[in-house]
Amino acid sequence: MGVTTVSEVEQKARQAREAARLLASAPTGVKNAALLGMADAIVAEKADLLSANAIDVAAAREKGISDALIDRLSLNDKRIEGMAEGLNVVAALPDPIGEVIKGWRRPNGLRIRKVRVPLGVIGIIYESRPNVTADAAALCLKAGNACVLRGGTDAINSNKAIADVLMKAAQSAGVPANAIQLIETTDRAAANELMRMDKYVDALVPRGGVSLARAVAQNATVPVIFDGGGVCHTFVERTANLKMAEEIAYNAKVQRCSVCNAMETLLVDEPVAREFLPKICGRLAEAGVDIRGCDRTRAIYPAANLATDEDWETEYLALILSIKVVSGVDEAIEHITRHGTRHSECIVTQDYNAARKFEDEVDAACVYVNASTRFTDGYEFGFGAEIGISNQKLHARGPMGLEEITTYKYVINGDGQVRS
Amino acid sequence: MGVTTVSEVEQKARQAREAARLLASAPTGVKNAALLGMADAIVAEKADLLSANAIDVAAAREKGISDALIDRLSLNDKRIEGMAEGLNVVAALPDPIGEVIKGWRRPNGLRIRKVRVPLGVIGIIYESRPNVTADAAALCLKAGNACVLRGGTDAINSNKAIADVLMKAAQSAGVPANAIQLIETTDRAAANELMRMDKYVDALVPRGGVSLARAVAQNATVPVIFDGGGVCHTFVERTANLKMAEEIAYNAKVQRCSVCNAMETLLVDEPVAREFLPKICGRLAEAGVDIRGCDRTRAIYPAANLATDEDWETEYLALILSIKVVSGVDEAIEHITRHGTRHSECIVTQDYNAARKFEDEVDAACVYVNASTRFTDGYEFGFGAEIGISNQKLHARGPMGLEEITTYKYVINGDGQVRS
Repeated sequence: MGVTTVSEVEQKARQAREAARLLASAPTGVKNAALLGMADAIVAEKADLLSANAIDVAAAREKGISDALIDRLSLNDKRIEGMAEGLNVVAALPDPIGEVIKGWRRPNGLRIRKVRVPLGVIGIIYESRPNVTADAAALCLKAGNACVLRGGTDAINSNKAIADVLMKAAQSAGVPANAIQLIETTDRAAANELMRMDKYVDALVPRGGVSLARAVAQNATVPVIFDGGGVCHTFVERTANLKMAEEIAYNAKVQRCSVCNAMETLLVDEPVAREFLPKICGRLAEAGVDIRGCDRTRAIYPAANLATDEDWETEYLALILSIKVVSGVDEAIEHITRHGTRHSECIVTQDYNAARKFEDEVDAACVYVNASTRFTDGYEFGFGAEIGISNQKLHARGPMGLEEITTYKYVINGDGQVRS
Repeated sequence: MGVTTVSEVEQKARQAREAARLLASAPTGVKNAALLGMADAIVAEKADLLSANAIDVAAAREKGISDALIDRLSLNDKRIEGMAEGLNVVAALPDPIGEVIKGWRRPNGLRIRKVRVPLGVIGIIYESRPNVTADAAALCLKAGNACVLRGGTDAINSNKAIADVLMKAAQSAGVPANAIQLIETTDRAAANELMRMDKYVDALVPRGGVSLARAVAQNATVPVIFDGGGVCHTFVERTANLKMAEEIAYNAKVQRCSVCNAMETLLVDEPVAREFLPKICGRLAEAGVDIRGCDRTRAIYPAANLATDEDWETEYLALILSIKVVSGVDEAIEHITRHGTRHSECIVTQDYNAARKFEDEVDAACVYVNASTRFTDGYEFGFGAEIGISNQKLHARGPMGLEEITTYKYVINGDGQVRS
């Protein structure tokens, strides 16, 4: 028999599991003191964080990484203060743990409480954005979870420096050592190993692009809370206030096009297409949007390119929009059902029955009447924080805040009941 | 290119998906009428069901299947009436769909409702127990879900006959055709295919033994709601009312030993071991329980066999019990944390602080003070129905009733809000 070596991932996951047990019953005051201390420490150690980050940025430049990615990787005074501010905000949020979600008494006298408790250990895999290290650690800690962080390779020096500051500050506030773990091994195998640590990790939150999602789908044995893509639609129904529809559609496409809750397809009810399309298309074109329309759209707005079948299923995350003219709410719902990703869908209408039908029949995390799909967001929903946006149906759907990284247990109090 | 053939599993899963869309907004009255009609039809077609079942039973006998399994496979008048009664009970339960779980208004005027909706299509894989066909179909239907049923091979004729009766009765009450689907292909490949139908199936509920669980863990891409095993403990703390402790422990082990919420390990606090162990062990031995104790247990009750390390982690599902003497609540919690399966754990105590500590620190779906672990059950909890008992932490934990086979969506009503 050779010597058994335990990998970094396994060792840290196991340590996190032990810390999680202690953290589960940590008082709110301890958790909040830790978060405030972490915020102070981040600011106090700014110089060290900036020099660690400078190493990452220099290496990334040498590798020829794109300016956009370098921008996401880079820290500066303002971003470090933003990280600290984020920690303070999480400290100020209500503690989700201990809530009695439901409670009742059975005829035999048993008292049953359904109590909110932490999930335990949460694994987070994310891209090379150092601020996520602080953000994810803070959210996990507030909800009583230990975390195992695995950030992008290019940010490794920044992440090590940030995690080191956070861990020390948390520990000196009384949070168990090992409650915040950073995986320092940067190869892909380490990420894959984390996905399979179901013995120690209770849930995995992948935050990244399509290739991470695919790797998780193929490898993970740890239950996953997924951030899915969004092919979101706005349907302008025949009774819509067309000025309102124009504002909503424009906002959903243009205000920030690179995110999952931006509109990718505009559906326009046939009776208003001739009036509505020239206005919205003109405005979108002015904003630089590449418009791809169905035949009926192009008959009205000839400058549009022809949309292909692929367009209806593409999450552009860019200034591109597909437009289809449909014959009423049924065809709109049909199109959304076939091509949507169950993320965020909107109808603009003044008709009670059309609104009601759309609300009932569209199967999506967020169904909007007369508001931009861009509101699908933990902050906009009032959760005060956001772990991500789920478009899976189990556990959590839509914007996820602190509650969504908790579970519950039943506590049953009796005085000798046995089952007959 | 050859001809594309669509498998039975894929075809039925796709049909179920279409039916699910219609079923999601089916009125409660239609669903209840269908359930009552299904109950009547089951009784009316009793003779046909019995003859189909006779074919299965004869074939099973020929294969030399055990008497216990033949018993589970067999139908008779009473069991058929029991199935019908089960359908009537589900009809009488409140409809979980449409509940506004939460609702609030944002400062910008958006009104957000979190509304309970069906999961969509639920795949259920189960062993050769024909009654599960009716039971599972009823629960799925009540919660607005279409179902794809894949029962055990040995029950195929019974299942076909039952499903046929159910489908016809449901349809004549106005439930969409294809809302209840039975996979008739009995090879293992069909079950594996169902586990990977994530395109059409929203959740998988495996109801069966360890080998099914393993196959699901290896193959499933559909999100799983899992029925896990239970290595459940009862801890008799030093202040316990020992008569109460004896009743609770005896009930937890003996009342029905083959189920997941039965006790597998008894932990006894050292100061009361000498008084408690002879009494409980004598009674358990009389009931035929094979007792396996730690050294300290055997010093007090020498008739016990010696427990091995494996015993502490074994779900016996039989009249076998491991017993360990521990030095207080901390060691008890430590043992449970190390060896338990987070299912159901009990402390018997009169001490407020010990109870509170156990409630807080034991990480399990159900934590009991002074009551038998056998109460972990949807009916005993008052859910009126049970899909299974989960010991996963995501989505559903503990006994699962109708609510646990639903999800939610956010419905957001605005009057033109856009994001700035």
